[in-house]
Order: sequence, then structure tokens, then C-alpha cells
Amino acid sequence: MIIQKTENSRISAFDPNNFSFGNTFIDHMIICEYDNGKWGDVKLVPYGPLMFTPAMMGVNYGQACFEGMKAYKDKDGQVFLFRPEKNFERINKSAKRLAMPQVTEEMFLDGLKALVDIDRDWIPQGEGMSLYIRPLIFATEEALKARVSNKYMFAIVATPAKSYYTEPVSVKISDHYSRAANGGVGFAKAAGNYAASFYPTQLAIEEGYEQIIWTDDATHEYFEESGTMNVFVRINDTIYTPPTSEKILDGVTRDSFIQLAKKRGIEVKIEPIKVKDVIEAQKNGSLKEVWGVGTAVVTTVFQALGYNGEKLQLPRLSEEESYAESLKRDLVNIQSNLSEDPFGWRVQVDHVLETA
Amino acid sequence: MIIQKTENSRISAFDPNNFSFGNTFIDHMIICEYDNGKWGDVKLVPYGPLMFTPAMMGVNYGQACFEGMKAYKDKDGQVFLFRPEKNFERINKSAKRLAMPQVTEEMFLDGLKALVDIDRDWIPQGEGMSLYIRPLIFATEEALKARVSNKYMFAIVATPAKSYYTEPVSVKISDHYSRAANGGVGFAKAAGNYAASFYPTQLAIEEGYEQIIWTDDATHEYFEESGTMNVFVRINDTIYTPPTSEKILDGVTRDSFIQLAKKRGIEVKIEPIKVKDVIEAQKNGSLKEVWGVGTAVVTTVFQALGYNGEKLQLPRLSEEESYAESLKRDLVNIQSNLSEDPFGWRVQVDHVLETA
Repeated sequence: MIIQKTENSRISAFDPNNFSFGNTFIDHMIICEYDNGKWGDVKLVPYGPLMFTPAMMGVNYGQACFEGMKAYKDKDGQVFLFRPEKNFERINKSAKRLAMPQVTEEMFLDGLKALVDIDRDWIPQGEGMSLYIRPLIFATEEALKARVSNKYMFAIVATPAKSYYTEPVSVKISDHYSRAANGGVGFAKAAGNYAASFYPTQLAIEEGYEQIIWTDDATHEYFEESGTMNVFVRINDTIYTPPTSEKILDGVTRDSFIQLAKKRGIEVKIEPIKVKDVIEAQKNGSLKEVWGVGTAVVTTVFQALGYNGEKLQLPRLSEEESYAESLKRDLVNIQSNLSEDPFGWRVQVDHVLETA
Repeated sequence: MIIQKTENSRISAFDPNNFSFGNTFIDHMIICEYDNGKWGDVKLVPYGPLMFTPAMMGVNYGQACFEGMKAYKDKDGQVFLFRPEKNFERINKSAKRLAMPQVTEEMFLDGLKALVDIDRDWIPQGEGMSLYIRPLIFATEEALKARVSNKYMFAIVATPAKSYYTEPVSVKISDHYSRAANGGVGFAKAAGNYAASFYPTQLAIEEGYEQIIWTDDATHEYFEESGTMNVFVRINDTIYTPPTSEKILDGVTRDSFIQLAKKRGIEVKIEPIKVKDVIEAQKNGSLKEVWGVGTAVVTTVFQALGYNGEKLQLPRLSEEESYAESLKRDLVNIQSNLSEDPFGWRVQVDHVLETA
């Protein structure tokens, strides 16, 4: 790894109690370029602009995929990543589906650790605080031909993330728009999947909802995902979530929730969820909770489902009664080193560069 | 429009008889930036790199769409665009679906004409030669949040294009992969649609085909598009093409072929095309031609269809017998000012900047 430390650290201007998530960037970034059929040196460099023309294939043909993950600082200042090997595996699944070169474990995990290590001072401490990390791969060749690019960049950038409590939201069960086709790229964290979801979400917001529960594009009879999250439904005391497929992202938070629920002795059924069964359960009072899970917010609890022009209310459970809240607490405690780590999910980031 | 002419023209190094399509760029480009809810000045500047970080939303969330169009130089050196208003309308349809700001006619058409005017010396002359022009809009805000971007760039870049004769190709009728979902973005020239098509195409190539005929994702019983082109089928002396929809691009070449066919008195049916009807027609000998149309190659004729593991051969017609070739000739003649323009499709590009 080639390391070029910044000579103009911005850390003194960073107030961990008052910053904007998503556009406050840490001092450094990882970059690595692919050309002539192979990846070059991994470089840790100051965060900043690079030179690209508007003919860059990444913005013309959408060969671009990413990961979202976090680093957490415990009360003693120790820094941990959470299940980073899952993100490593998944970025390569996404890359393969988009006909992009896969990255090596060394590029991904060593790059990640070096970046988090050198900029560990940027990780805010305290309940729910973290560093949000964005590894991505995108096509960089300048060419106006609709074909696979010959040049790519792998990069890791990061922004401090706040503890945010999210109010329960209302979600619309999609009856027209969809996010994934059979034989498509729904399972991948493909850049284009996100752009495609914005307009339908805007329409749902105009109708008084905050998010969309995506359903299958052919019949709209089955739940797929919710917003940019995996979705869980609780009927009586059983939790349901759809199986992963070529249309549904294999979420790290989803998988963690499943394991944590089983550990608590909660029955988890991984099976297709029919819209009509959820609506029926709401009508007969057996529908207890519906929520989304993802790295950014961990979980968002839903207070109402929009279906056929009706806004169907969900019960408001206490934190103790709520599986969504209990499992979120279990997860956050492991992530932040506030509890034991029975699954071996935490990966400590050693001091190597920072003390150098 | 702000005009900054290059002081280092590369035109003297450009050999119109020997250049590489797609990565030879003309001297200038158009750029225009969107911020604070509005577009800024349109700028005609030297083609070259701009500054973007890997946190640019265009490569993270795929808000990016484009157009493909051409300028043609006739034997007297006059320069023409072809139906540019169609591309203007379509880029805004794409932008709307991707929750991006629409561009103005002034930005798009005046920018286009200024660019083609100032770099008219880059347009190669001769049969089938042209300048391939790429207008695009992409998100430029630096932010790690899966939401609509607040900043965008509209750009126009261009590359000289050769006359290329394409050999008839074999295409696989897709039985698993798909390019569009119901309620998705298939009708838009969304960047992500192209990336999603590359891997299935690679697999088809491994099976001995050059392209894919995309079918509906739910049943694979209906033709949608072919490669990055609209598809036409001729059974006996009737031409069929699927109606445009939210899954099928409203192609300018498609529309032009339909009008040209009608002018020739050929029967055109715009209706869903069943895979099974095409296969049946191949078996009973009534299937005469299947071809794709698009701006880049005008038309690609298919010599065989892959279906259910079989490679079904198509007849090889002479240029006179072939509707695909006849209509291509009609179209190219209009584009290149070799024939009358009964539809008013040509738009001449005046000398304004070049002589300034």
C-alpha cells in the first residue's frame, strides 16, 4: 500500500457534536486503479477530487456498485468494524453481475483497516455514533461505446455518522412501480437501482408516505424490500422476511437480525410474504410490527401501511414489546462493544498507521 | 453561452481515414452545472477532465442518463443533425424518471448546434461517416446519502464515427435474464440499464451468440428489445415491432423505420411479438427477417436466433429483397442529404462560431 498522508488535516474543524452526515468527509480515502486487465497499487491519499471527463463510462453506462458499512468506537477508544467480510463478498457479487473486475481481499479489507486506522480520530464516540464507510467500484474509461469498460477505480470514502433516532414512518405498498426485474440486478448494490427508486419514492411522499414497500413487478402480490432496506413482518410472535433472491439484497443487517432473533428464541420464517396475508393480519389484529433494516439506520419502524388507497395503522409497541427495537438494541450493543460478541462479528482495527 | 475556444486544437493529428470510434474526442464539449435549484450558464469549453471525487453521487446512486445522436456532413460540406428534437424530448423523459432536473431547449439544442458548428472540421465526410454525439446528465453532488442529488452536470461530448458495415449476427432469445421490470426504467436511457445488460451478454457470447433479444422478465414469452436496439420482425411481407412502453425505449431510429416502411407501402404492425409466433414462423418458412435498429449502427441484421438450445437460421436476403437493408438505405440517404427529406427530419447546422 502506498501511503500519502495529508498535510492539511481538517480534523480540527470537525465538531463531533455538530456535523452534517453524508457530506463531511474524513481526511483520507483509498483509491486503486484497474487497467490492462489488473489492479494497480492500493493508495491511501488525501480525500479530494480526481480528474474525470463527462465521457467517463461510469456515468454513461452505469457500471458502478458500492457497499455501506460502519466502524464503531467504544468507550475506551477501541475501534471495530462489523462483519466486513460480508461486504467484501457482496461487492464482488455486485461487480460480477455488472461485468466489473472483482477486488481482492487485500484491497478491500486492508484498505478499509488502513483508512479507519489513520482517520480514527474522525470516528465520533457515544451511543449510536459511527463512521459510515463507502467502498465502491466504478468504470473510469473515457469511451462512448455501450460495452464493458477497460478501466475502473476502486475507492473507499467515509463520513462520520450520527446517532439518529428515526420516528416511525408510513410506507406505501407499491402497486405499480418496482425496483427489480426477474433476471435483473436487484440483488446487487448496483448504482442504477438507487436512481430508479427516487421518482416512485417522491410520488409516494406526495401521497403522504415516507417510503415504499417494493413488491414483485409482475403481480405486486409479494413483499420484496422497503426503501433501501430489507423488510421484516411480525405476525403474532413470528417474524417473517422474504428469502434472498436475484431480486432481493442479501443484507448484512438482515442476516444479523435473523441470527439475533433465533438467539432470543423468536421464531423466524424466511419465506415469501404475501401482501394479502399482511393486510389480513392487520385487519384481524395479529399484525404486530413491520420494519426495515439496513446499515445506515439499523432499523426503521413502520406506523402505517398504504394499500389500495387506505392507510392501515400498525400498533405502537413499547421498546420492550417490540422485536424490532429489541433486536436493534442487541445489534447495536454488539457493534459498539457494549456486550459480548457470541457470533464473532466484531473486527478490531489495530493501531498501525496512526502511531507511525 | 460562454465560449472558451481551445488554444490547443488536436484536429491536425486527426486522420478521418484512420481513427478509433468512441475514444477519439473532438476539441470541445458543452457543460452546464445545476445547483441551488437551477441551471447555470451553458459553457462551450475545451474537451478535458473535470474534478470529481469518488463520493460523486452519479457513480454511487446512478442518477445519470444520456442520449445518442449523430451529425452528418454532405458532399458540399454542409452539416446536418437528425431529428434532434426527439432526443431533447427523450432526455427529459429519462431525467424525470430518474428524479433529475430537466434541461431546457436552449441548453440542449443551442448547445448541440454550437458544439457541432465549432468542431465541424471533426466530422468525417463520406458514406455512412458521421459525428456521434453524446448529451448526458449526471449527479455531481458529493454525498453518501441514498437520496436525490442537489447538483448535476449536463454535458455534450462527441466522437467521430466511421461507416461500419456490420456482419449479420446471431442473437439469443433470453430465457432468464431481462433488462427491464414492469414499473421500472426500461424506457429511459438510464445509465444503469446498460451496465445490467453486459453480464448476460457476455454469457450469450460464451454460448456462441453476439447479442441478446430481451424478453419480458415474467414469462420470457414476448420480445422487448435486442441488445441496445429496438427490434423488428418480418413475417412474409409484414413488419412487426413491439409498442413502446415503460419497458421499451422510444427509439428515434425505430420511429423513423416505421415511417419509412409506411412510405414504401410496407405493412407495419405495432403490437406485442410473441416468441412462439416467431419460432413458428421460422419453422414454417414465413419468417423472412429479424433485425435491430439504433442510432449507432442504424441496423444490425440477424442471421440466427438462439432458442431453447437450438440455433434457428434465418434466410439471407439480397439487399434488394431485404426490408432491413432497404429502410436503412432510405434513412441514411435522408440523414446524409443524398435524398429529399419528405418528413423534415434534417436540421442544418449554420456557420456561426466557426467563422467568428
